Amino acid sequence: MVETRNPLNIGAAARAMANFGFLRLRVVNPYDVAFREARSAVGAAPLLEAAEEFAGVAEAVADCRLVVGTTSVGHRELRHPIRRLEYGARIVRRGLAQAPVALLFGSEKFGLTNDDLSHCHWLMRVPTAGPDLSMNLGQAVALCLYELARDPKAVLTRPEKIKLAAGAQNEQITALLLEALRRSGYVNPVTAVSAEEKARRLVRRLNITARDAPVLMGMLRQILWKLGE
Amino acid sequence: MVETRNPLNIGAAARAMANFGFLRLRVVNPYDVAFREARSAVGAAPLLEAAEEFAGVAEAVADCRLVVGTTSVGHRELRHPIRRLEYGARIVRRGLAQAPVALLFGSEKFGLTNDDLSHCHWLMRVPTAGPDLSMNLGQAVALCLYELARDPKAVLTRPEKIKLAAGAQNEQITALLLEALRRSGYVNPVTAVSAEEKARRLVRRLNITARDAPVLMGMLRQILWKLGE
Repeated sequence: MVETRNPLNIGAAARAMANFGFLRLRVVNPYDVAFREARSAVGAAPLLEAAEEFAGVAEAVADCRLVVGTTSVGHRELRHPIRRLEYGARIVRRGLAQAPVALLFGSEKFGLTNDDLSHCHWLMRVPTAGPDLSMNLGQAVALCLYELARDPKAVLTRPEKIKLAAGAQNEQITALLLEALRRSGYVNPVTAVSAEEKARRLVRRLNITARDAPVLMGMLRQILWKLGE
Repeated sequence: MVETRNPLNIGAAARAMANFGFLRLRVVNPYDVAFREARSAVGAAPLLEAAEEFAGVAEAVADCRLVVGTTSVGHRELRHPIRRLEYGARIVRRGLAQAPVALLFGSEKFGLTNDDLSHCHWLMRVPTAGPDLSMNLGQAVALCLYELARDPKAVLTRPEKIKLAAGAQNEQITALLLEALRRSGYVNPVTAVSAEEKARRLVRRLNITARDAPVLMGMLRQILWKLGE
């Protein structure tokens, strides 16, 4: 983080790092009061305490093989290749497997200066709805780290399957429902057969879970009891 | 946003919405002072002014076909199917194509209550590094909206190609470099041929861009001029 001014943003960045498992925060020429305030904030804890302070970008990225600047604007006359976050994060992830990579964030007000940018191999852009919509710094950090930690396979993986009620349970529910409909006068002997089929189909369409089946049966039994014979 | 207490979080959420093109903010039972403060914040503008206020979750989601709660914790005994953000966002996106979808965010301190959750069809979880790492509310909103707006194809799309220097330019640079090496005594007539090949290969490995080629030639010419004949 280069020349960050707002302690809340330093704190938010640190929290996002902890959330996504990134550990090394480096600050370049921070506004001293802000840095001290952020360090003493509740919940800031280990990550911020271990944050390293540097006088310039060159010193901060000295051990990094890849230096990537971040931006959310498109209008500046940028002399760097710009990659969208989705694509750039993939390259960063590959780089991280081999050597430290620096992700540079500029100040809240001005972003990265041309001098900061001259240390970067390329830039990564958060794809906002409009090209001129600048982002909140803490949110930009969170987005970049999320995309780095994001699991592309999770899009395809089905979540833990919800266990659906077995056929026998659905049939019990159908029977109880039909009995309630009969006792309440909703179905009469003439239409009984088609009513039974309708009820059966309806119960299946509800996709009742194994967990909810006994609850529903309990409800229906209570209603039946109240309806009497 | 349900029972949000901090005006900065309401503001951050509104900013993230603007960033990713989401327009309808609804707040349920917000802390009045916070809501008013957020509304009057610089840059909050149209989105916050148009925010609708409701007394309860039921009223706020009345016109939504799908209601999705958000959580970053895994330890609570949750009676809902939980989907990871990457996967859940896909379902939400599909739902949005047909009807309004509500994304519920709870208070900073307690998240969504069991009563709030009972209005949800399922829950979406931001995949943090540890299951107990709660997220900053503004950042959580930004992540969810980013994932919704995220373009999966952007991972595969190559960014605008950097135009590399043409063969003729590389050859000119090679010639200038060799001349400088010759004049400075780096190469001698005996090793000249292998030196030429080495220099040629080196220049190609640099992947000089079309834009940088004339700059490099200018530098080399200046050096040659200073080296004299």
